[in-house]
Amino acid sequence: MDKPYVIGIDVGGTNTVAGIVDKRGQIILSGSIKTGTHSEVEDYLDELTVLLDDLIAKTTTKDQIKGIGAGTPNGNYFSGCIEFAPNLPWKGVIPFAQMLEDRVGLPVTLTNDANAAAIGEMAYGAARGMKDFIVITLGTGVGSGIVVNGHLVYGHDGFAGELGHVIMRRNNGRLCGCGRNGCLEAYTSATGMARTAREYLELQPNLQTKLRDIPAEDITSKDVFDAAMAGDAMAKDIFKFTGEMLGEAFADFVAFSSPEAIILFGGLSKAGDLIMDPIRESMERNLLKIFKGKIKLMFSSLKESDSAVLGASALGWEAK
Amino acid sequence: MDKPYVIGIDVGGTNTVAGIVDKRGQIILSGSIKTGTHSEVEDYLDELTVLLDDLIAKTTTKDQIKGIGAGTPNGNYFSGCIEFAPNLPWKGVIPFAQMLEDRVGLPVTLTNDANAAAIGEMAYGAARGMKDFIVITLGTGVGSGIVVNGHLVYGHDGFAGELGHVIMRRNNGRLCGCGRNGCLEAYTSATGMARTAREYLELQPNLQTKLRDIPAEDITSKDVFDAAMAGDAMAKDIFKFTGEMLGEAFADFVAFSSPEAIILFGGLSKAGDLIMDPIRESMERNLLKIFKGKIKLMFSSLKESDSAVLGASALGWEAK
Repeated sequence: MDKPYVIGIDVGGTNTVAGIVDKRGQIILSGSIKTGTHSEVEDYLDELTVLLDDLIAKTTTKDQIKGIGAGTPNGNYFSGCIEFAPNLPWKGVIPFAQMLEDRVGLPVTLTNDANAAAIGEMAYGAARGMKDFIVITLGTGVGSGIVVNGHLVYGHDGFAGELGHVIMRRNNGRLCGCGRNGCLEAYTSATGMARTAREYLELQPNLQTKLRDIPAEDITSKDVFDAAMAGDAMAKDIFKFTGEMLGEAFADFVAFSSPEAIILFGGLSKAGDLIMDPIRESMERNLLKIFKGKIKLMFSSLKESDSAVLGASALGWEAK
Repeated sequence: MDKPYVIGIDVGGTNTVAGIVDKRGQIILSGSIKTGTHSEVEDYLDELTVLLDDLIAKTTTKDQIKGIGAGTPNGNYFSGCIEFAPNLPWKGVIPFAQMLEDRVGLPVTLTNDANAAAIGEMAYGAARGMKDFIVITLGTGVGSGIVVNGHLVYGHDGFAGELGHVIMRRNNGRLCGCGRNGCLEAYTSATGMARTAREYLELQPNLQTKLRDIPAEDITSKDVFDAAMAGDAMAKDIFKFTGEMLGEAFADFVAFSSPEAIILFGGLSKAGDLIMDPIRESMERNLLKIFKGKIKLMFSSLKESDSAVLGASALGWEAK
């Protein structure tokens, strides 16, 4: 008999959320534990196992669960390991899937957060029925999950889809967290937008803007959003700059895999038209003729609070 | 019973070559006709049909042939059409696969030249046993065939893999044949290299170089190659510039699909280490840390004269 449930786990730097999910993509029950407070991964997994056992006991039995899918920073689908994740307390290579499997007794499949988001969009969200699309996650960093012909692109080593790290400025590019210069992420992540704000304030010292009321080092993308919504010209320019660069990058991504849609996901996508309008205009202007007018630009249709768990859970159905 | 043969057709702007190919990738018999002399596609297809019938009659019978694969400029795998090919005499959308099928009575599958090269490398060449790789064709233009998880990437409309048209210079980029500015192809195709030579000659009027013996407008990439092999400093610099840009572009391609290998194919790849050394150095320098030292750079292992026909023929095995 087909098992009716899977478990989705979203491992974030601060919190870990787990949920029991049914075939229609409904989260039946969910719960969370702290991630960052456990310096030993063993302690963390022990607490996570208690949570999972509790969620299962309250809804069903273990033999009704097909598998567990987990989305983690730097999660490698092929190896089941978390590899050198900068924002987690556990260093090096952690055989996360195997360790959790040993504790819970259910098959565990792992991938990174952006790939989990793409799987979630395909199973339950904006990409239902699509076989070729790209999810771009705009948050603290810029991530991507690429789907080609109905399958996630993992690459030969499980690390494909690092589209936050294509080079957009080959000369004098900003230093990126990856150690290189000029990456898309250094400009168009939430933190990149805040850097743009600080640059604009310094380069235009006489321009009036609400952003000057905030200590420069404290400015966040949320401040830029609030100022732009209140009509602040500099803040609107920052969104225009950010969106235009994303549009330029998207035109190159289209030349690679010719997706039906590019779907925006994560914090910055809450800015709506403020970010989407310049992306669309810039992408269309930069596309090769054969692609013009063909590529859908969309926001994720999943509830932000649920999407990470749903996306990860969809991997649970792959279990053998 | 399994049919033992397929037919491969390479439609070029000047010549069309067709060959009967067996399961081991041996071209049993081949022949060619002129492409450009037929202003009507019907006349061209009539002559091609005579050639195919002749090749078949001399080797086997029609019922022993599984199907026909054709690699053509702007060939669309999904539609079977040649769409707006600038270097062919037939304009607009030509339902090439259907028209040939009607004449020959065998199933015809179509794709573009670079995709055919990638299929050929996978079936018979340097990419045997690989599931993730990219073929870059360096000729009059720059093309690409991308394989992910053992399958060619066609995209939602059949036009994926236009990697010659990612933007490498966002300011003051060279005008490309596609109408945009700064494309990889405008710099690193054979014609792009000749443009680089003319630029270098103009910008360094006092530098001694063999390239100055040739009228600037007549310089070809072959001239640059010959001069570099003879030790000419400017010619070597032109190869360095070309290879470095290719390496930068390859580092971005790796961030997309994390291929096991990137395989160079076509005219410029004959330059060997002259082009490969700067590509390798630049790609490694520009790669994200997780990819460094992992990506193979190789030349096509197929005989240039056979590869296009072999690649196209591999599509013939897909016939139902």
